[in-house]
Amino acid sequence: MKKPLDVLISNNKVRALSFLGDIRGKKPLFICTIATTETAKIKGISAAGENPEITDFTPPADSELLLLGKCKCIPGVPITPDGIPTPALITMSALQLADIPVVVASGGVRIKPHIPLLELGGIPGKDISTGKAVENVDEVIQRAKIAGANFAKTTDYLVIGESIPGGTTTALGVLLSMGINAEGKVSSSLPQNPHKLKIDTVNAGLSAKGECFGSLAKDPINAISFFGDPMMPVFVGMVLGAAERVPVLMGGGTQMSSVLAILKALNPKILSNVAIGTTRWITDDPTSDLAGIVAQISDVPILAADINFSNSRFDGLKAYERGIVKEGVGAGGAAIAAMAKTEGEITKDILLKEIEKNYESLMGMK
Amino acid sequence: MKKPLDVLISNNKVRALSFLGDIRGKKPLFICTIATTETAKIKGISAAGENPEITDFTPPADSELLLLGKCKCIPGVPITPDGIPTPALITMSALQLADIPVVVASGGVRIKPHIPLLELGGIPGKDISTGKAVENVDEVIQRAKIAGANFAKTTDYLVIGESIPGGTTTALGVLLSMGINAEGKVSSSLPQNPHKLKIDTVNAGLSAKGECFGSLAKDPINAISFFGDPMMPVFVGMVLGAAERVPVLMGGGTQMSSVLAILKALNPKILSNVAIGTTRWITDDPTSDLAGIVAQISDVPILAADINFSNSRFDGLKAYERGIVKEGVGAGGAAIAAMAKTEGEITKDILLKEIEKNYESLMGMK
Repeated sequence: MKKPLDVLISNNKVRALSFLGDIRGKKPLFICTIATTETAKIKGISAAGENPEITDFTPPADSELLLLGKCKCIPGVPITPDGIPTPALITMSALQLADIPVVVASGGVRIKPHIPLLELGGIPGKDISTGKAVENVDEVIQRAKIAGANFAKTTDYLVIGESIPGGTTTALGVLLSMGINAEGKVSSSLPQNPHKLKIDTVNAGLSAKGECFGSLAKDPINAISFFGDPMMPVFVGMVLGAAERVPVLMGGGTQMSSVLAILKALNPKILSNVAIGTTRWITDDPTSDLAGIVAQISDVPILAADINFSNSRFDGLKAYERGIVKEGVGAGGAAIAAMAKTEGEITKDILLKEIEKNYESLMGMK
Repeated sequence: MKKPLDVLISNNKVRALSFLGDIRGKKPLFICTIATTETAKIKGISAAGENPEITDFTPPADSELLLLGKCKCIPGVPITPDGIPTPALITMSALQLADIPVVVASGGVRIKPHIPLLELGGIPGKDISTGKAVENVDEVIQRAKIAGANFAKTTDYLVIGESIPGGTTTALGVLLSMGINAEGKVSSSLPQNPHKLKIDTVNAGLSAKGECFGSLAKDPINAISFFGDPMMPVFVGMVLGAAERVPVLMGGGTQMSSVLAILKALNPKILSNVAIGTTRWITDDPTSDLAGIVAQISDVPILAADINFSNSRFDGLKAYERGIVKEGVGAGGAAIAAMAKTEGEITKDILLKEIEKNYESLMGMK
């Protein structure tokens, strides 16, 4: 009998099981898309960094962690203002355990990581409250599409993750402008989800640009350009290029619903070959509603890695159970891929032990 | 019975046949390393561009050809001063026919191609006659090594090619400083090999730096830094990272002997998993001696794609039989990989027809 995977299914069980069956025992390539924006520097909007100014360092540091096993552009690892470590720790542990290769693709970062970096012609994003968030969207999508199509020829399937501070606010901007009711439904890396600050920021952008709820439903390129972030064109292009040939696991929380809305507007057929891979902390989150947003767009399956840090030896990890961080850097997708690749040999317990080992060594406790 | 491949073996027949057997029917990833240098702008040194100044555009244009099927940063395709088209035309035709994926990795280019580009922290090279050719060599090698190790997990083997004008002169610089007798033995894209100009350029660099023949035999990093080019650290790092796990076909002419010398100095064991893949125009070339240089370094096999343009409908292609261009952009390696992947279904005749079709359409004749 096949070993069960520690993966929860939160909707569309038939397609979810079929997707899991398709990737079981197969070899994935993990792509981490990164970008930075000025939106993340709005006070109180993101916990992806010790303070707002330092969010520019979080995506490069996260990607160094994945490729080097340690950060070079900052000491230690990225942490929240409360000292809780980046979810890249989960991603790194899962990818290393299952020997899954990584490519980091940039949509535009202010600080360059000390790693091989796939550049796609993007630059860092501006504050979406100006209504002028992202440049060069169409060109970056085209380049990412070419990269995705080429990577799809080398591997059984792709797992794509993201590291972009402030990403749920830009997701909200794209979702609302495209007519998806996501108010009060996007997730947060903070334990107290700052829904009001996010909606105020998006509304400022909509006003500045003379747009309103749903006015860009058929114009995803402008939805990104005005209210999105530079991770989006890279992520979207990669899926467009790859999912015609291989399955794609979109690793992330509520941000993935904005990517889904864009994909649906650009090429709805592609959605038959994708699933969202996230963490239990997202699907259990009472302050957000991933499934509720996704249901308005498509019936793509949502898979959640059943990781649980309740019994961790470390308070910094236990904090995840109080709703801090929750997801990011494709943590859920990487965990699912590690379990699927090894056909269940990697369990949630084995993964936790590896995460604790890496946490201990990276935080200089050992 | 297995279909024979249109591949010639020019040395070490046992290992060559074993290498060909290993890659037969297998799925490769093609990596095109690109860089530009001021060395290429020395008048009369390179034919990789209509004139010396335009050599900055040749590598980006070549890589656009591979990924987009057309150039964006220049009209048409790169040509020699005589109007003979870039060997990227061969590479592109081979890779497209055999559905082989491509990644372009930059060591430093002045003009950015309109494609996904893997950046490794390098910058364009200076004129080697100054003795200060390449910056950041060690760091670029480390980054490329990480990239190579990750790509090796996604594919059965790697084929690595290069596009760098002036590359045989910088190869000569590295070879002589490392004590390999390569004077009068490196190849040229020009029909009249400018051996004297090349050796004068290298000697100027050696004098400027107070080095001499063989003085850097055990210091390959400085050999590149002083007299090499920025393609080298990328190529070397990729091989170091990949060849521990999968075979690597080093696609190129006499430049590959400089890469081989560097690899031998850094990690000689790695050479057991590599072969050189080139064209018949290189192994038949009376003005250069690839085998003679390689024999001084290692007994890695040299494979040559048995392509022949004598019967082409186009004078621009027939010119290859007069010794113009000869090799570049991994043309030989890509042709061998296309033949091997399809187990001989792609023959030299099928390849020529595809090249002619692409030549016709890209040169606007049809």
